[in-house]
Parts: sequence; structure tokens; C-alpha cells
Amino acid sequence: MTNSATNLRLKLPMACIILEVIIIILFGILVQYDDETDAKLWHKEIANGSSNYDNDFYYRYPSFQDVHVMIFIGFGFLMTFLQRYGFSSVGFNFLIAAFALQWATLMQGFVHGMHGGKIHVGIESMINADFCTGSVLISFGAVLGKTSPVQLLVMSVIEVTLFAVNEFIVLSVLGAKDAGGSMTIHTFGAYFGLMVARVLYRPNLDKSKHKNCSVYHSDLFAMIGTIYLWMFWPSFNSAVTAHGDDQHRTAMNTYYSLAACTLATYGLSAVVAHDGKLDMVHIQNAALAGGVAVGTAGEMMLTPFGSMIVGFLAGTVSVLGFKFLSPILEEKLKIQDTCGVHNLHGMPGVLGAIVGAVTAALATKDVYGDGLVCLFLTSLEMEASFQGVRQAISLVVTLGIALLGGLITGFILKLPIYGAPPDTICFEDGIYWEVSLATTPSHFVWMNEHTGLTDLYIVFV
Amino acid sequence: MTNSATNLRLKLPMACIILEVIIIILFGILVQYDDETDAKLWHKEIANGSSNYDNDFYYRYPSFQDVHVMIFIGFGFLMTFLQRYGFSSVGFNFLIAAFALQWATLMQGFVHGMHGGKIHVGIESMINADFCTGSVLISFGAVLGKTSPVQLLVMSVIEVTLFAVNEFIVLSVLGAKDAGGSMTIHTFGAYFGLMVARVLYRPNLDKSKHKNCSVYHSDLFAMIGTIYLWMFWPSFNSAVTAHGDDQHRTAMNTYYSLAACTLATYGLSAVVAHDGKLDMVHIQNAALAGGVAVGTAGEMMLTPFGSMIVGFLAGTVSVLGFKFLSPILEEKLKIQDTCGVHNLHGMPGVLGAIVGAVTAALATKDVYGDGLVCLFLTSLEMEASFQGVRQAISLVVTLGIALLGGLITGFILKLPIYGAPPDTICFEDGIYWEVSLATTPSHFVWMNEHTGLTDLYIVFV
Amino acid sequence: MTNSATNLRLKLPMACIILEVIIIILFGILVQYDDETDAKLWHKEIANGSSNYDNDFYYRYPSFQDVHVMIFIGFGFLMTFLQRYGFSSVGFNFLIAAFALQWATLMQGFVHGMHGGKIHVGIESMINADFCTGSVLISFGAVLGKTSPVQLLVMSVIEVTLFAVNEFIVLSVLGAKDAGGSMTIHTFGAYFGLMVARVLYRPNLDKSKHKNCSVYHSDLFAMIGTIYLWMFWPSFNSAVTAHGDDQHRTAMNTYYSLAACTLATYGLSAVVAHDGKLDMVHIQNAALAGGVAVGTAGEMMLTPFGSMIVGFLAGTVSVLGFKFLSPILEEKLKIQDTCGVHNLHGMPGVLGAIVGAVTAALATKDVYGDGLVCLFLTSLEMEASFQGVRQAISLVVTLGIALLGGLITGFILKLPIYGAPPDTICFEDGIYWEVSLATTPSHFVWMNEHTGLTDLYIVFV
Repeated sequence: MTNSATNLRLKLPMACIILEVIIIILFGILVQYDDETDAKLWHKEIANGSSNYDNDFYYRYPSFQDVHVMIFIGFGFLMTFLQRYGFSSVGFNFLIAAFALQWATLMQGFVHGMHGGKIHVGIESMINADFCTGSVLISFGAVLGKTSPVQLLVMSVIEVTLFAVNEFIVLSVLGAKDAGGSMTIHTFGAYFGLMVARVLYRPNLDKSKHKNCSVYHSDLFAMIGTIYLWMFWPSFNSAVTAHGDDQHRTAMNTYYSLAACTLATYGLSAVVAHDGKLDMVHIQNAALAGGVAVGTAGEMMLTPFGSMIVGFLAGTVSVLGFKFLSPILEEKLKIQDTCGVHNLHGMPGVLGAIVGAVTAALATKDVYGDGLVCLFLTSLEMEASFQGVRQAISLVVTLGIALLGGLITGFILKLPIYGAPPDTICFEDGIYWEVSLATTPSHFVWMNEHTGLTDLYIVFV
Repeated sequence: MTNSATNLRLKLPMACIILEVIIIILFGILVQYDDETDAKLWHKEIANGSSNYDNDFYYRYPSFQDVHVMIFIGFGFLMTFLQRYGFSSVGFNFLIAAFALQWATLMQGFVHGMHGGKIHVGIESMINADFCTGSVLISFGAVLGKTSPVQLLVMSVIEVTLFAVNEFIVLSVLGAKDAGGSMTIHTFGAYFGLMVARVLYRPNLDKSKHKNCSVYHSDLFAMIGTIYLWMFWPSFNSAVTAHGDDQHRTAMNTYYSLAACTLATYGLSAVVAHDGKLDMVHIQNAALAGGVAVGTAGEMMLTPFGSMIVGFLAGTVSVLGFKFLSPILEEKLKIQDTCGVHNLHGMPGVLGAIVGAVTAALATKDVYGDGLVCLFLTSLEMEASFQGVRQAISLVVTLGIALLGGLITGFILKLPIYGAPPDTICFEDGIYWEVSLATTPSHFVWMNEHTGLTDLYIVFV
Repeated sequence: MTNSATNLRLKLPMACIILEVIIIILFGILVQYDDETDAKLWHKEIANGSSNYDNDFYYRYPSFQDVHVMIFIGFGFLMTFLQRYGFSSVGFNFLIAAFALQWATLMQGFVHGMHGGKIHVGIESMINADFCTGSVLISFGAVLGKTSPVQLLVMSVIEVTLFAVNEFIVLSVLGAKDAGGSMTIHTFGAYFGLMVARVLYRPNLDKSKHKNCSVYHSDLFAMIGTIYLWMFWPSFNSAVTAHGDDQHRTAMNTYYSLAACTLATYGLSAVVAHDGKLDMVHIQNAALAGGVAVGTAGEMMLTPFGSMIVGFLAGTVSVLGFKFLSPILEEKLKIQDTCGVHNLHGMPGVLGAIVGAVTAALATKDVYGDGLVCLFLTSLEMEASFQGVRQAISLVVTLGIALLGGLITGFILKLPIYGAPPDTICFEDGIYWEVSLATTPSHFVWMNEHTGLTDLYIVFV
């Protein structure tokens, strides 16, 4: 498995260290503590009558930590389902997330408005940086096993930048609401990644087909990722919503949506899977679609009833996508979507955007009371239906930027300079990680030549 | 392993989808946001001078998330100790928990009081629903490996309903205190599950005996469950106690009880286990008994000293139960308690109820100050000893409802219509999950016939 | 693997139960609820106008739980990288942490000041006890695989006591700042443990060399530990800093330091590891050095820029230490540092102490405003440079007490009465745990004698 083309002794250090040095320099020039993290400014606020409890840290830090767990444990372990790709799944997830959250702080800071030439940072910028990182990790799922860490870093540089631009257009220019990121995070990340996967299409990927599947323990590791994502999704969707009822309601709507989605997933999985048995791929992924699909409307007065319907639909769409759509995507559209992100983030993200547009269009002062202005930041006389239109346009813009950005990024990543794996050893940790032979999982040794046994092989898991 | 009797292609989807549709309809009719999650109502409170910080979300959401982790990761992974039952342990735990929390919201809402014909939901109802779910998962532990997911869903429907009734009697009618649920959650869940297991007794279960044990990595996965339960138990016991000193004290008492319990568990395990070695079963389970046993008294002025004594006793009782009582339960009483829930939840739950009754009976105005009224919600002139009596009666009521409910449920689950596994393939994921043969753990291939080797077999883990 | 010398049937129960009984008695005599956990006292404060939200529980409990996860999951699973030592890594970590947090409550209470002859406990004492426990677990990492649980308990008794003394000298006598414990926790724990390892040097440890390495799944379990430590380190460093901007800033500085450290780690690992591939040992450990190295300065106005530089340096130093220094420590200094704690906690801890001294020396009223007094608790006229000197002296004192304490402890642990493993079966769970043979991981069976195959062995993982 040693190959000069995939040797990263120079490429990976150069990428990591150059990028980190650039980031550090930019942070030195541009980044400042905000009012709530700066000792002098905060003590001024205290002197003016604020209490330490008004510091946003106490409103948002627990949610931030839950989001952080989703990014590093949730996404990282969800992708360990591949039998020989656990080190890379967790390890590259770790690398590109650590990079992307720094780069996102800068890009989101540039785009969303500087303060006297400076980017201000605090708990909210940390959450937003983690959100942007989530989008990159969704795209990572589409190209999992077929890319080198250098390619992933390059993809992150571009995707984070475009994410910030799209987020700015959607939230600030168009004035859409998207607290949990059905559009800005999930739809964007999924279609960006799918387009990259399309451009990087490998006609001979079946040479690595025997590694592109799970073994028993790898599926259990993946369930760690699934369950953490599922549990903390209420925190994800509510992390940056307004204080008070907004955070509270968003968390609760998400909780109900996910619960309903899980029942739909188990039911549908037994229907479509082979022989009436449950399929781990569905459970690991589709059960999460309910969190994606209330990412926009979750902060609105969707009601638990509405949330459950959305979750139920999302789970259904997602399982059916895995069963019927993924093979078509691969065969007809030549999109090799390793983790099925189209089913978990793509379709449920679009569903979430539509639900958000409809729910916003139906908002009335009668239902929201004074919360209407607070939530939609609109003047009272504005028509709710207009907010619905903004939401719908935002979906279109997001899809456009994601697909175009993914296309360009795909061609950049196709350059043969990043140490990408050959078709024969995709989905294999050994290409980028030191893995002692004795410890390689699922090592097949064909014995019948030596022993005369027929068709017996020893599986080392 | 394919068998029409255990094929769930119709049964599981019907169960999941019918149940979910019923839930959604009932939510549509009956469930409303409460004052703190409704945009209009909360903004009225804000207009009346409330601060966003008064929203209960900020007092309870971090505890809720810890409880959530215990339910989905803690219980789920604790049960992965079985060598071939990891998918089902985590997966069925996931399914029935997602169902039970929705059903519990309705049942607890019905029983504990409607508001103008509506059930109000917010962070406290979410925690209480998770608590009720915990009780179902305890019962799941008793029947683990021997039941189909359809049986588990049916069990959940009944158990959640009876849980809500019992909880109402204990907390509202009898006025007992049981914040961490020594009685309502642990005693109830354990004895309900044990009675179900008794009715479902399988005389020929030894045909699956070789699968009813752990392998190396399955024990490590189980430790993930154990440690999460252990760490977050302080949040569990304190999640719905009163704001301020109550939450603070409950968390701390639980912390000390668990620490003392752990030392007792290690000490006793080395005494009773074979050859002076530690037994993973004890560590995984008995070390948690300290959390169960302060579930009632933890919010009282039990003192760290008292908490440690309770924890020490609980750990001792639990290890001795695994060693000496479990074999008797199985042989004499015909209760096949897969996870030993009698040792972790049953006896420690009863111990906790007794400790709670005694501690309540000893409460004085001198020790509690103004906190006495706040905690026990009693008029000052009432005798503390009377509170002790209420607590004791509550234990008896809980045991009665649990045993009777389990009995009836057991007979319902005995109907041969749920796709239960035959005696020969219990404790086996392959019966309900797609598991590729190559990846089945611990697959024994007897080689000596072919190779002439004596007593050599290849273990696929 | 059964051996009377390592049989713990008497030794471990005696150690556990005697220690726990002593602790319980001391708690009974000495420990009281503090103002915020005592029902009477807190309700007095409420009557005097306090709000329940002023209870420190709400400021610190979420951070406490994150720290708790680092102690029990983080440290526990980080050490599961050894192929046959997972039960002991998680299990002994669990045992000594549960002991140490109780003992630490007493020792820190004694040393830091009693209240009318009583030790007061609440959320802050819980966090401090967990911190002290962390220091013991660092030392555990140095001697991992070569010590019996009885030795570890004895080590904990002494180390916790000396930790409390050193912490008192550094924080109270010298007035140094060290919120995240670069000195008091990491430097102390590392050099204490290294000195113990030096005294317990085993010249024939290479007899167990084949077990002193990882297998595929053990490395994945270890990544659970790594990622949890990484994610929650911001909570660790900020858990006991002052309310408001201090907690907020400390968490954020740590977040940036770790992100930069991760990039440095991946870059350097690919440079120094064999064949340009990444080395799991580096990723699992060095990526965390950034958290250690901002443990002192993190609460100061280090700026994100400064934090990233520190993190970058820490990651670099740590990877280089694993590659170049660890072999020298083992061969020349005869220090067998199983987990490489010198690289993760030792050098980065010293770096953190130096960074803290310099940052403190540079503090000005202009930058900190009123926060200066608040942070450094010094009168305004005092020179900042004087604070720098205090910090530097604290490092020297810490190193002195750690090395001397470790030396004495090492000789005590060398007594042949604790059931330590022989050189031939170090790094092996089977010596202290019931492990069924069929489930032992990585069991090598040499087949060629029987089958005539050349160099084929079957690996049971």
C-alpha cells in the first residue's frame, strides 16, 4: 500500500502548516474579543448595571458543547461504518473540522460585517463556525473513502468561503429564517458534496467494492455517531435562536420531529429491506432526517403535531431514497454518494426549506403575538406571505450556489497533485495511516490452496 | 435464520406506523405549547416584567440533555455486552425509547392534569417523558434477547400507561417525593420487567446459552453505557427537583453515592468473583446502584455522609445479588433476567424507597428551615413522620401495580403473533437485522474434521 | 494467568473497603453542605433577596459535567489503545477516579481552609475534586499496564494529598493563577507519574512487548477518549474561572488553541511518521496538547491569535517528543512512559506555565480595565511583572513537589505486597479480570507446526 503518488510526507504537512500559518496571521490582524469576552468591555457593562448572568455564555454554551459533540463525535463516528476506514472517518473528520472552524470564523466574520475593521468573536461566532463546519462534513460524507486529506482541506477552503457567501445572501440580503440550517447547512452541504462526487466520478470504483461495506463492530461504532447526532439535534437547531421561548420551542419541536422520524424509519426499513429485516444503513441515517427537516421551521409555531408530521415524512423519504434513489443516482447520474448524504441531508433539507416557507407564510399576529416581530424581524404591516417568498427564493439561491460551487471545486480537486487514492485501494485506512498488518480488520486469507479446504477463508475482524 | 414466523416485514411496519399515526392524531387534538414555549404567551410574560432567563429552559435543558444521553446511549450501550446482540441492544432501545417518549407525553398529560382540555408541553414534560421511557428500558433489560421489537412496542404501550397511573397515585394522590424515581422509575420498571420475564419463561433457553455471554469488544461497548449512566446520574436525579439548593444538593448527593458505590463494587467483585479477579458484569451494573438508591432521598438533606452509606450498601447488595440471588431467581422462580435488572434496579430501588421514607420521616424545620415547606409542599404543622408513611405506602403501591401490570402484559406478549425468536436463536441479531455472514461476530468454524487438527476452532470476532 | 502473587481476592477488597470506610467516617465528621446546597441556608439567602439563579449550580454545573466526562470517558477510553488492556484502562480509571474524587474533597478541604472546623461542599468543590483526580489519571497513564489496582489506589492516596498541598502553595501562598491547571494538574501529574515510572523501571519489560501496542479496534476506542477530551477542554479550563467574561474568554481561547494544535499535529505527524503516513499515537495525544498549554494563560487576555500560536507550538513539541524524546527517556533515563504523558502533559504543561507567566507579566490596566483586579485579585498598584514572577516560582515549586513526591511514592509502590504483574504479563487484562479465553483479543495461534503452512497465524481480534 505504499505508493509515491499517495505519499503525503510533503503534501499534507505543507497544506496543514501553510493554512494554519495563514489563519494565525489573519487572526492576528483581524480578530478581536467581542463585548462579552473582553475583560475591559465586559467590566464596563457590569459597571453600567449588567449582571454576569446576562453574558451570552450562559445562554448558549451548553448548546454549543452539544453542537461540538455532533460535529466531532457525531459526524466522525457516523462515518466509521466502513469496515477498513475508521481511522480516516474519525481522523479526517477531526482534521477538516479543526481547520474549517477557524477558516469559517474568518469568512463569516468578513462577510457578515466587521466592527471597525475587526472581526468580533464570542460564543455565537463559535456556534456559527461549527455550523459551517457541519456543512463541510456533509460534503465529506459524499466523497468518503475516495479522497486524500489534502483534497479534503482544499475542498474545505472553498466550501467554507462559499458557505459564508450563501449564508449572507440568505439570512442578511433575503432576510430568510434558517436557524437550524435546513437550507444553509444541509441543502448546501449535500448538493455541494454531490456535485463534487459527480465530477470525481470513478468508473472503476467497483475494484474497491469489497471494502465499501460494513462489518459488525464498525456498524456499532457508527451507531455512536447516529445516537449522538439524534440526541443533540434539538440543541443544534436551537443554538442560535433568540433567547427565551424561541430556544425552548425549537428544541422541543426538533425532539418531537426526531421521535416521529425514528418510528417511520424502522417501519419503512422493515418494509423495503431484504427479507423483512432491518437495515443498519437506514437506522443510522434516515432516523436523523427529522432533525434536518425542521431546521428552518423548528423555531416557528410549527406545533408538536406539525413537527411530527414533518419528521414522519422526512424518515419516509429518506428510507425510500436509500432503497430506490441511491442506485439510480449512482448508475444514471454517476454520483457515487458513499454515505448517502442525498437521503439524509439533501432531500430532507429541501423538505425542510419548503416546510419553512409554508410555515412562515402562514404566520399571524394572532398566533405569535409580540413574538412575530421578534422572530421574523419584520415590521408588523409586512405580509407573512412575503416572508414565505423570501424563504423559497433562499432555497433556490442555496441550490444554485451549492451546485455551481461543487462543480468548480470538483474540477479543482481532480488535479492529480493531491495524493488521491487509486481505484483499487479506496475505502482503506492503510493508504494514509500506519496500520500494522496483524491489526488490519477483515483481512482475508485464502486457505484452500494450502490446506485443500474448499472455499474456506479466515476472516480477521 | 430466515423464518416466516419471525419475519417482520408486515408486523413491524404495521406496529410502527399505526402507533405513530395514532400519536400524531392525538397530538394534533390534545397537545399545546405551554406558557414558556408559546411565542404569544411568553412574550406576554416578558411584557409583564419577566426576563428571558426566567424561562425554565435555562434551568433544566442541560439536565434534560444529560438524561437524554442516559436513555439513548446509557441504556442502549449498557446492553451491548452480549456478543451477537449489539444491533438489537442499541437499535431496539432506540426504537422503543423514541416511541415511549411520545406515548408518555400523552399518558402523563392525561393523568397529571389537562389545561382546558389540552396537554401542555415544555422542558419539564420532556424530562418526565424521558423518565417514563427509562422505566420501559429497565424492563427491556429483563427480557433482552428473547423478544421481538413488536413485543417490545406492545409492552411499551401498556407499561407507559401504567407508569403514568402509578406516578400519579404516588406523587399526586399520596404526595410522596421521588424526584429521581427510586420507586416510580426503578422499582416499577424492574418488577414490571421481571414479571413479564417470568410469564415469558423459556424452559429451553439453554439452547441459546452459548450466545448469552459477552466477548471482549462487546464488554468495552457496554462500558460506554455504564460510564455515561454513572456520570450523568446526578443530572437524572436532579432534573426535576426545585430550582436552587434542591437541584444543587440532589446532584451532589448522587455524585457521592455513586463514588462510594463504585469502591464497594470493586471490593466485593474481587471477593466473590472467580479466582480473585474482577467480573465485568459487576462493574458494568453494580457500580450504578448508588444512583438508583438515592433517587428518592437525594433531594432531601441526606448529607454527603448519608449518601455515601447508601451508595456503599447499594453496591454491596447489587454485587451479592448478581452472585447469589440471580441463579436462584432463574432456577427456583424461573425468572430469566438477562441484564440482572433485579440487582441494578430492583433491590437498589427498594432500598432507595426505604431510605427515602426514613429520611423524610426524620425531616425537621431545624434542618431544612424554609426549605421544608418548599421541598415537601406540606403545611408546617404536619408531622414529618406522616411523610415517611406516605413514602412507604407509595413503595407498596408501586410494587403492586408493577407486578400486576407485568403479569397481564406477560400474558399478552405470550400470544404467538409478534414474531418472537425461537429458543434456539435468542440473543442473536441475525434474526431481525441484516448481518452479512462474514461479519457475524464470534462465528465458530470447527476445523478438525477437515484439517485433522484437534480441538482447534477459528473464532471470528 | 492465575498466580497467587497477583491474586487480589484479599488485597483489593481490603484496600477498597478500608479506604471507603475511612472516607465515610471522615465525611461524617467533617463535611457539610455549603450555603448553596443547604436547604436552610439557601432559603435564608432567598429570603434576603437572592434569586435561585444566583445559585452557582447554574453557572458551573454544565461545565462540571463536561469535566466529569473528560475524567471518566476521556481519560478512560484514551488508554484503551492497548490491544489487551481495555478492561483495565476503563475499569481502573473508573476505580481510582471514584476514589480520588472523594479523597480529594477531604484533602483540598483540609488544606484550603475549613469553615468552623467543617469542610463545605458544593459544585466548586466537586469540580476541584475532579481536577485533582485528573492529575492522578495522568500519572496512571505513565505506569499503565505495569501496576495492580492496589498499587494505583495507594498512589492515589499519596498523590491526591500532595496535589492538595502543592495547589495550596501555588494558588494561595504564591497567589499564582492556574485555572486550567497547566502547572497544578498537568505538570504535577506528569512529572509525579514519570518519577514513579522511573522508580518502578522494569529492565525486562520487553517480555511483554508484543502486548504493548494497539490493534485496529482498540485505536478506535481510544479515539472516543481523545475526541471527548478535545471537545470538552474549553469547559475544563473555564470551569472554575470567574463568572462572566472570564469563563467565556477562557473557553474560547482553549477552543482556538486546540484547533491550531490539531493542524500542527497532523502536519508534523505526516513529516515524522514512517513513510509519510499518519500515526494514531500522535493524533490521539498530541492534538490535545493545545488544551494543556493554555491551562494557565487561557483566562487572561491571551487573544485568539496568542492562543493559536501556543496551540501550534504545543502540538509541534508534542509530536516531536513522541518521535524523538520518548525513546531517549526510555533508553537513557529508564522511564517507561506507557502513554507518553511527558509529551501530552509534561512538556505542554511546562510550556503553559511559561506562557502564563509571560502573559501575566504583560498584563496592563489598559487592556484588562476593571477586569485586572478581578482576575489577578491584586491591588492596582502592584506590578504585573511581579505576578509573572509568582507564576514562574509556582512552576518550580510544582516540579519540585511532583518529582520528590513521585520518588517517594515509587519506592512505596515497589514493595512486593500489592500484587503487581510480572514482566511477562504486563499490558494484559487477563491477570486481573475474568476474560473468557475465546474472547481474548488478538490471540495468536501458531499453526505451521500442525498444518505445514509457513508463517501463517490466525489472529483473533
